[in-house]
Amino acid sequence: MPKSQSKLKSPNTGLYAVIMAGGSGTRFWPLSRQLSPKQLLRIDSDDSLIQQTVKRICSLVPSNRVHIVTNENHYLEMKMQLALLKEKSESRIQKSEVNFLIEPEGRNTAAAIGLAAISLFKKDPNSLMLVMPADHIIKKSEKFMDIVKDAVDAAKKGYLVTFGIKPDRPETGYGYIKTGSRVKGQGIFMVERFTEKPDVNTAQKYLMSGDYLWNSGIFLWKSSVILNEIKNYLPDLYKNLMDVKKTIGSNGFDAAVKSAYSKIKPISIDYGILEKSKKVTVIPADIDWCDVGSWSALDEVVEKDKDGNIKMGNVIDIGSGNSILYGGKRVLATIGLKDLVVVDTDDATLVCKKTEAQKVGKIVEELKRRGSEAHLTHKTVYRPWGAYTVLETGERFKIKRIEVKPKAKLSLQMHHHRSEHWVVVSGTARVTNGDKVYNVHTNESTYIPPSTRHRLENPGIVPLHIIEVQSGEYLEEDDIVRFDDDYERIKKSI
Amino acid sequence: MPKSQSKLKSPNTGLYAVIMAGGSGTRFWPLSRQLSPKQLLRIDSDDSLIQQTVKRICSLVPSNRVHIVTNENHYLEMKMQLALLKEKSESRIQKSEVNFLIEPEGRNTAAAIGLAAISLFKKDPNSLMLVMPADHIIKKSEKFMDIVKDAVDAAKKGYLVTFGIKPDRPETGYGYIKTGSRVKGQGIFMVERFTEKPDVNTAQKYLMSGDYLWNSGIFLWKSSVILNEIKNYLPDLYKNLMDVKKTIGSNGFDAAVKSAYSKIKPISIDYGILEKSKKVTVIPADIDWCDVGSWSALDEVVEKDKDGNIKMGNVIDIGSGNSILYGGKRVLATIGLKDLVVVDTDDATLVCKKTEAQKVGKIVEELKRRGSEAHLTHKTVYRPWGAYTVLETGERFKIKRIEVKPKAKLSLQMHHHRSEHWVVVSGTARVTNGDKVYNVHTNESTYIPPSTRHRLENPGIVPLHIIEVQSGEYLEEDDIVRFDDDYERIKKSI
Repeated sequence: MPKSQSKLKSPNTGLYAVIMAGGSGTRFWPLSRQLSPKQLLRIDSDDSLIQQTVKRICSLVPSNRVHIVTNENHYLEMKMQLALLKEKSESRIQKSEVNFLIEPEGRNTAAAIGLAAISLFKKDPNSLMLVMPADHIIKKSEKFMDIVKDAVDAAKKGYLVTFGIKPDRPETGYGYIKTGSRVKGQGIFMVERFTEKPDVNTAQKYLMSGDYLWNSGIFLWKSSVILNEIKNYLPDLYKNLMDVKKTIGSNGFDAAVKSAYSKIKPISIDYGILEKSKKVTVIPADIDWCDVGSWSALDEVVEKDKDGNIKMGNVIDIGSGNSILYGGKRVLATIGLKDLVVVDTDDATLVCKKTEAQKVGKIVEELKRRGSEAHLTHKTVYRPWGAYTVLETGERFKIKRIEVKPKAKLSLQMHHHRSEHWVVVSGTARVTNGDKVYNVHTNESTYIPPSTRHRLENPGIVPLHIIEVQSGEYLEEDDIVRFDDDYERIKKSI
Repeated sequence: MPKSQSKLKSPNTGLYAVIMAGGSGTRFWPLSRQLSPKQLLRIDSDDSLIQQTVKRICSLVPSNRVHIVTNENHYLEMKMQLALLKEKSESRIQKSEVNFLIEPEGRNTAAAIGLAAISLFKKDPNSLMLVMPADHIIKKSEKFMDIVKDAVDAAKKGYLVTFGIKPDRPETGYGYIKTGSRVKGQGIFMVERFTEKPDVNTAQKYLMSGDYLWNSGIFLWKSSVILNEIKNYLPDLYKNLMDVKKTIGSNGFDAAVKSAYSKIKPISIDYGILEKSKKVTVIPADIDWCDVGSWSALDEVVEKDKDGNIKMGNVIDIGSGNSILYGGKRVLATIGLKDLVVVDTDDATLVCKKTEAQKVGKIVEELKRRGSEAHLTHKTVYRPWGAYTVLETGERFKIKRIEVKPKAKLSLQMHHHRSEHWVVVSGTARVTNGDKVYNVHTNESTYIPPSTRHRLENPGIVPLHIIEVQSGEYLEEDDIVRFDDDYERIKKSI
């Protein structure tokens, strides 16, 4: 998109979007994992939640003003997903223009927003930040954009503007905002107070009173104002952010962020700032919003069939009703279910009463306690050179499907405890095996003995697909010595 | 077991056991499959149902008097399971002594019983046949043996004795037998009539009347008497059986059975003989019997935990009750379920209301209609040389785990459309690859190009485990040309 055009589309000079995409995602287990959280999932449409969020925001600001705050685990897959968006002609996104801010570890929302604020303030001291989570659904996009314009006016006056959703049911899964007096001459209100998630009776009272709105986690403010409030209410965080700010644009930035994050205490922006600041306002937003907080929330956003079911994937059902049935590659057969959630994935299955879907987190905790990896590893892992999927592990063997992009190569490496056997399913591989370098063509295979330097490379112009069988007594990822790497990972273990 | 000892243990001279094990098994889908029906499953204990049945019957007759009627698909796995029984010291079974009668295709129970009857009549014209299904559970084994003794007395007098179970609930899943007058001087009754599975009101009436017993499918009679009744009531079947009888002990037996079965019309022994014969009696049998007819029947036979759940395998549960939870290799997480059956297997998952478990057959029909193989192929397939498990199939590849028994070898064969890549995970392989013969050791691999004669062999004395990756455009089992085979399968396609 030429710059002139992007400016036309965004009359909001000084407005930047900050997408919070660092969530670890346990509430959609087993579909979401620590390595593949819900913002990367296609839950309600062909687009993942991050794809939807970026598309939506790019109607409002040019894509080079979009900043995504995320972590290293999710960065590559997110980038890949946004690249896919670009291929679709209807999208106004240019992947190269979207900015990423990578957090070394999660420190809750105050730190993430602070990091974005210093970056934007440095670019433009008058910058306005529209902060929004990556994992929410907004159905009324046009309406949302109108409301942003109103919020911009208030933010320019120095208010911290929160977006409040008018409740249509006594929801116990959201926080609420109690509205106070109307701000003179504006369609917005001062905030009287924030409340935690209420019990069902309290939620009913909130609904009846008409004074309460759901806290959507969408905010708009000037970067200078939020930094000033951080200085007032979270002085330690402010000090750490200032240490980072000095290094913006220099080589020392990554190290400064890492050092600062090691010292930052996690706290949410709500608890740390919004519940204390005197500048907090709320703008009622009738935008058909849903935070997709658990499996049962799908009922709000996905269209159901005539029996009230939401079905995806390979499902055969007899007589179920009001259920969410997510099949994977395998057959999922369901008979006579009512009000259930069934999610079938490659390495875990969830069957859950819909009203108890929020207990999924407890399953994830229990899996951690047992040392199971089913909460952690999704089977497909993205790498700079392509991706791999663990197909099977067994006694003395592990099998992966590996895709190497054209012209890409893995690091020159060595394993002490395993052999690797590579079967070329399609494409051509160039293999370095000790002192030899040779090509392996489709339907051929080769193997690398233990303690032998080796490298896998795609010299061609179509993707290379191989099946790798590892054999040996120890098959973990940490048995690797790297000698040379296109992606500067020599000192890291992954 | 020396013969003298076996005679001591069995005072029932002339008594033979016939185990009906030809069932195709859809009611325990997805655990049971056409290639692995329920008699081969470990449903309620460490022993499979066929193992339990053989163990039980070997307390009554020596194992060389046990005849199992089954089909070619199940024969090898059954033989393997009985060999495992032998390894357990407590068992009185010698696998070599158990006899198998292989039906070329299922023709219902009259044909199977007829085939067993001519075999036993040929051995001993006074032989008595105790007929029992392989897939039932009898908890009171001692009591059962006492009742067999009474039944033997009646059978010797020329009666067809059926075993009737006193109902303890209005079960709609079983057929019933209405008792008539008591046979003079015996604890048995003439049968007034057989009934189909009743509706719940009728079942309730049967229960209250005290005149009805469940039809257990266990029978005892002289082979000569049942053959005579087949002659009277099923003359076509009788004629076909007589054609087979002539060939018993000769090389022509298998061909004669095949020819006869191609002409036999399927009919059950109940409908074809027992509902018509005047010689049918019933002996009340208080033996804590259950036919394990569907998943919900497990409630009758497996001990539940304090919440009323039956759990097996890799299950994490929060707050479920009265449910059957069968986990497999993957994690099965369940939350707040009531009265459900969940069965998680490698290639299919079932979630079903317990009271609707009998509808599983409809799922299997639907899968057949869709052409899915999930009703057909269990992942581990037994072969004379060992076994293989399909781990994964994908575009242009298929991956199998193969175990070859010591000293065993696969056929000398060739595929036109695929390469095969063999990774030796443990043991040593001897590989014939075109004109070359060489050994491949643990952690080494080799591959066979298309259209190349090859053979895989285990020359060693420990099992050989390999991972086979097939690559190519066509990967079905029928792309095989066999040149030489230790197991005489040259003309067959499997």
